Parts: sequence; structure tokens; C-alpha cells
Amino acid sequence: MSRLDINIRRLKAQRACLNQAAEAIRDLPGPIFELGLGNGRTYDHLREVLPGREIFVFDREVAAHPDCIPDQAHLFCGDFKDTLPTAAERFAGQVALVHADFGSANPARDARKAAFIAAYLPTILRPGGLVAADRDVAFVPSVALALPEDVAPGVYFLYRRADDGR
Amino acid sequence: MSRLDINIRRLKAQRACLNQAAEAIRDLPGPIFELGLGNGRTYDHLREVLPGREIFVFDREVAAHPDCIPDQAHLFCGDFKDTLPTAAERFAGQVALVHADFGSANPARDARKAAFIAAYLPTILRPGGLVAADRDVAFVPSVALALPEDVAPGVYFLYRRADDGR
Repeated sequence: MSRLDINIRRLKAQRACLNQAAEAIRDLPGPIFELGLGNGRTYDHLREVLPGREIFVFDREVAAHPDCIPDQAHLFCGDFKDTLPTAAERFAGQVALVHADFGSANPARDARKAAFIAAYLPTILRPGGLVAADRDVAFVPSVALALPEDVAPGVYFLYRRADDGR
Repeated sequence: MSRLDINIRRLKAQRACLNQAAEAIRDLPGPIFELGLGNGRTYDHLREVLPGREIFVFDREVAAHPDCIPDQAHLFCGDFKDTLPTAAERFAGQVALVHADFGSANPARDARKAAFIAAYLPTILRPGGLVAADRDVAFVPSVALALPEDVAPGVYFLYRRADDGR
């Protein structure tokens, strides 16, 4: 597989997982957290498949297409390590979907980021809320969801908060 | 269509066109010119589908994955405007395939680049040689090739040098 093949596989898996997650949370209230804006592609996709849903975006700096940048009120600019704890406090138990796209060529760094994000998911997510991610952010208590057809295991990850929040 | 959808469509079209072009030039000798290295995805794809074929890469600066960077002898670093005329002189009538991936969000700039590249194609390409591009680089004398199935018109472009070089 060339890097072109790998990238196409990754983006198709990402889209399939976001579509499945969007369908699953359609009747679950609460905002979406987008961890990693990048060029704004998945932000654009999420607002298209979940119109009207509030989306809060987290990134170190904003480098997206001008039409894929949320307003200041929906932007947490800075390191996840600083912004996620603040947001977790403000949105505790409210978030319907977290999408985390942060993978790099550095597996050790990615694993540390995944663990950091996973530690906040039980606080942030509403019971029944989902996380979709390009790295394994398994948390307790969660259940891994069946991936969409055509998504190879390990390319993308889907988990649902499994407890009832009591 | 979200920007994620558009990007997937673009990359799939790119891969389909490169695969078709690679098949078409399999028995046509001569190097490949890759105009725009970017992160090296299509360079990696080209060397995978055409193993052993010499590939010369052109880019303003090298920002690719470390394992997708050619050696110095195969790298033309700088503005196309400076490097392409030099390369055209050295490889006149020898190149089997030019891949040009240079589209941006600026249609006027892209059109100027397309015209600049198109002006050199009759010199660079060997008779029967192909160009695949993400913008329309139609040149004289060329014929537009039928695009692979599933590639929408205008997403990618394929032309063959139509004269016999005499």
C-alpha cells in the first residue's frame, strides 16, 4: 500500500465512522467536541451531517480553510492539556460526541495523547455519548462499537460511554 | 458535499488516473516528472506502481515524509518557473509521464500555473507521453484521454502528446 492508498483508506474510514456516529447520536442531545481542527475537513463534515448541532473545536492553532473556522465562542485554542480540563469542567456529562483526530508518525506521543484524552472522556461524555478517534482512546466505562463495513480494525475507533452516569 | 467528501473524491480520482497512466506508459521508456512533491503521497504511489522507473521531483521546498524524499540527483528544488525550463532542456522529448498536482483555492493562480506547465509539455514529453494533473493543462498537440470510471469530469485531467515528434 502506498501512502496515497493509506490516506484514502484513512479518510474513508473516518467518514464512515463519523456518519455512523452522527446517526447514532441524532436523538441524543448535547454538543460535539472536535479535538484537532486541522484544515477543517471533518468539522465541515460534522456540521453537514448534524446541522444545527453545536460544535466546539480544540486545536493548538487555527490553520483551517477560512470557511471552516468556528466563531470564537466555539474555539478552544491551545494545547489539549490546558484546554480539555477547562472544557471538561464546563461541559461535564453533556457532550454527545467527541471526535479526536490527532494521530501522527510518532506512536509513543500518540499513545500519551490517547491516554490523556481517554482520561477525560468519562467526565465529558453524556451517558450513551460516543467517541470516534484515529487512535485507540478506550476508556472505562466504555464499550467498543462495531465499525462500519469496509473499515479495517485499527484504522479508526468507536466507543460509547457504557454507564448511566449515576 | 463536505470538504471531507471532496477530498476523498479528489484522492480517489488521483489514484485512479495515476494507475491508468502507469498502465498506459508501462512499455514507453523515459523518466517521470512529479511536479509538486507535497507530503510525498503520489511520489510514493508512482514508485510503487512503476518500480524501477526514474522519477524527478519538483517542488519549492521539501516538506515530505522522510521516506518519500528522492535523492538530490532527482530533486529540482525551487519555483517551477525556474526549474522547469532547465529540466525541459535536459530532458527534451524524453519524459514518459508528467504528474502535476498544484491546485489551490486560487483559480486565477492555478490557471496561470496550468498554462505555464502546458507550454513546456510538448518539449518535455516523449511522443505518446502522458500528463495527469489536478488542473487543466491541455496543450497543443494533445488528445484528452477518457478518464477512469468513477472519475467525474473536471476532478482530474489526462492528456497524451498526440504528434510523433517529427
